[in-house]
Amino acid sequence: MTSTIPSNIGVLGAGQLGRMLALAGYPLGNRFTFLDTTGNPSAGIGEVIVDPDNQHLAAFLEKVDVVTYEFEHLPVQLVRDIEQHKPVYPSSRAIEVCQNRVEEKALFDHLGIPTPAYRIVESAEQLEAAAHELGCPVVAKSVTEGYDGKGQAVLKQPEQAGDAWRDIGHRQLIVEAFVDFVREVSIIAVRGRDGEVVFYPMAENQHVDGILRYSVAPLPDIDASVQQTADRYIRSLLDELDYVGVLALELFQARDGSLLANEMAPRVHNSGHWTMNGAVTSQFENHLRAVQGLPLGSPEAIAPTCMINVIGQEGDSSALLALSNTHLHRYDKTERAGRKLAHLNIVADTHAELLEKVRACQALLPGAPPVSWSFESTSQ
Amino acid sequence: MTSTIPSNIGVLGAGQLGRMLALAGYPLGNRFTFLDTTGNPSAGIGEVIVDPDNQHLAAFLEKVDVVTYEFEHLPVQLVRDIEQHKPVYPSSRAIEVCQNRVEEKALFDHLGIPTPAYRIVESAEQLEAAAHELGCPVVAKSVTEGYDGKGQAVLKQPEQAGDAWRDIGHRQLIVEAFVDFVREVSIIAVRGRDGEVVFYPMAENQHVDGILRYSVAPLPDIDASVQQTADRYIRSLLDELDYVGVLALELFQARDGSLLANEMAPRVHNSGHWTMNGAVTSQFENHLRAVQGLPLGSPEAIAPTCMINVIGQEGDSSALLALSNTHLHRYDKTERAGRKLAHLNIVADTHAELLEKVRACQALLPGAPPVSWSFESTSQ
Repeated sequence: MTSTIPSNIGVLGAGQLGRMLALAGYPLGNRFTFLDTTGNPSAGIGEVIVDPDNQHLAAFLEKVDVVTYEFEHLPVQLVRDIEQHKPVYPSSRAIEVCQNRVEEKALFDHLGIPTPAYRIVESAEQLEAAAHELGCPVVAKSVTEGYDGKGQAVLKQPEQAGDAWRDIGHRQLIVEAFVDFVREVSIIAVRGRDGEVVFYPMAENQHVDGILRYSVAPLPDIDASVQQTADRYIRSLLDELDYVGVLALELFQARDGSLLANEMAPRVHNSGHWTMNGAVTSQFENHLRAVQGLPLGSPEAIAPTCMINVIGQEGDSSALLALSNTHLHRYDKTERAGRKLAHLNIVADTHAELLEKVRACQALLPGAPPVSWSFESTSQ
Repeated sequence: MTSTIPSNIGVLGAGQLGRMLALAGYPLGNRFTFLDTTGNPSAGIGEVIVDPDNQHLAAFLEKVDVVTYEFEHLPVQLVRDIEQHKPVYPSSRAIEVCQNRVEEKALFDHLGIPTPAYRIVESAEQLEAAAHELGCPVVAKSVTEGYDGKGQAVLKQPEQAGDAWRDIGHRQLIVEAFVDFVREVSIIAVRGRDGEVVFYPMAENQHVDGILRYSVAPLPDIDASVQQTADRYIRSLLDELDYVGVLALELFQARDGSLLANEMAPRVHNSGHWTMNGAVTSQFENHLRAVQGLPLGSPEAIAPTCMINVIGQEGDSSALLALSNTHLHRYDKTERAGRKLAHLNIVADTHAELLEKVRACQALLPGAPPVSWSFESTSQ
């Protein structure tokens, strides 16, 4: 057999991102072994080793040819230990930086990637001082472990520092000045083992309460120079970290068009799910190509696409599937308030048509907020 | 939960068609239980019950909500038995007709669907007489169980009847006059539980030694009337059988443009694999939507697409994946001469560009025959 594709991919974490990696990898002929550390895996595919007490690592390592992860809040030491035995992509260096906001900001600064003004604080008093210095509103975030809006608080006045400090309950916080942004965007790029990089078109992302609700790509009004700037920022991160796999960088776009880095994730990302139906190669497939040393696939957009997250409660699948060019991606998870259960990718010929279809979809999803894109007149 | 999608799909047969059904069904939130009767399943996904001696049917039935199949050469009585317990789509009636060429031809005749002239024979002498009557060359096929070129023989002279009869080794054969066809085509359609039907664009299929090698769709030169005729033929079959799911009808197109039915398959079909990357909704997803009573998805073609079968020996995956808009679908099966191991779907902006890319691909696949399409000048 002349195929060079190794048979078994180890994945740390066994949620929906791992599920979607596996669905992209089976056609490549991969097999998957998941190491779940939560005791509550939902991937529902491949072999899942449930290991909340870290007792089965050796069994996991024996089965796999290469290791990746779908969740960055893992102990860095665990990843370093694994690296002694099997190749891990992205490396432990990437996880180390991405799971700590202080390190992340330091890397942005080092590479000349602009960010919102920020301070690092270790007490309620320091938090209040920072809020004064930066000027409210500010957002305070735990330095480690926050995602999907957890471990964050907005201070509208410095006097709220005491409550915010207690609510977040971490020993170190990062405090960021609010950005008067036009929109939140993200760029997803992939770097192969040989340094080859491809860049996906930027997406515009709409969050509510810190959770992503809509992503739309490509953007009809994006200046080529803005995409190039984003490409340059993310490439510098990829090269600095000698990164292999998919990297996601979330940014704010200010009124003057300039970009400010918000945060990055060393894995496939929610704001890249649109690529499963809207790009020539999905982020999941490209991540797997990268970690296995295969050539990367084209990141070109096929057509205007919007991803709609399904949070907390599922809609009527039958009604949703009756909409044209509407692709359902369910995660086989039980309903719970605030939980990511599925997403829909809607594809259309134009952004105007896309917006109409997304609204039709939103009407069928309990709790889905109104759609609001910066480049369309969305007032009704 | 308002979703109406049942959780567990039972599949009779556990080969690559079942594998691809599962890969299409996981995003719908389905789970899969396969009943394998061969003792050698390759699906590699979901739960596989290996049951060559028909001992575990009850266990299978207990797990599943609805049953379908990926292989039609099953005992009809087995399917009828299952129908007593769980819904089966397509029904046992469809399998009964499609697995027997005499019944199949009778149905074509009954519905006024033209076929090549044929005779039914039950001895070498009758075979020789039929070859004289129809005029050689003729093709003799076993009435049951043939597929991928098995159980067939071409007679260039009536005197070859004795050898052909022995080689095929079945008690009843169908003998068909050769068709002086311009090309072989197929149409795939889907009928829902409510009678809704969608028709995929016709594909042109190139076989070598009875095995499909290339399928290209949509066809740039197809008369709307020809597609409509094919739609009409397959719709009459779907309605007559009160069929639910994907049905594939293979036809010859004669020099005057008219269509002659060759054979049909009551399942997802090799000549429909192009839909995985070239149509809005794949045949696999649409089959699952149909059997679960969900609305059907659009069958529209996205762009010119060619499926290339990988038979017997795999190529260098790395080199193949370096080609643009080239999608690899491996079946995780071990190499063996004549065995279907994978397919590639190539997508391009034009048929001319597609042909170039397919040739580049063919050069990387051991044993792949030269590409030859009726609508392009393919002489080199």
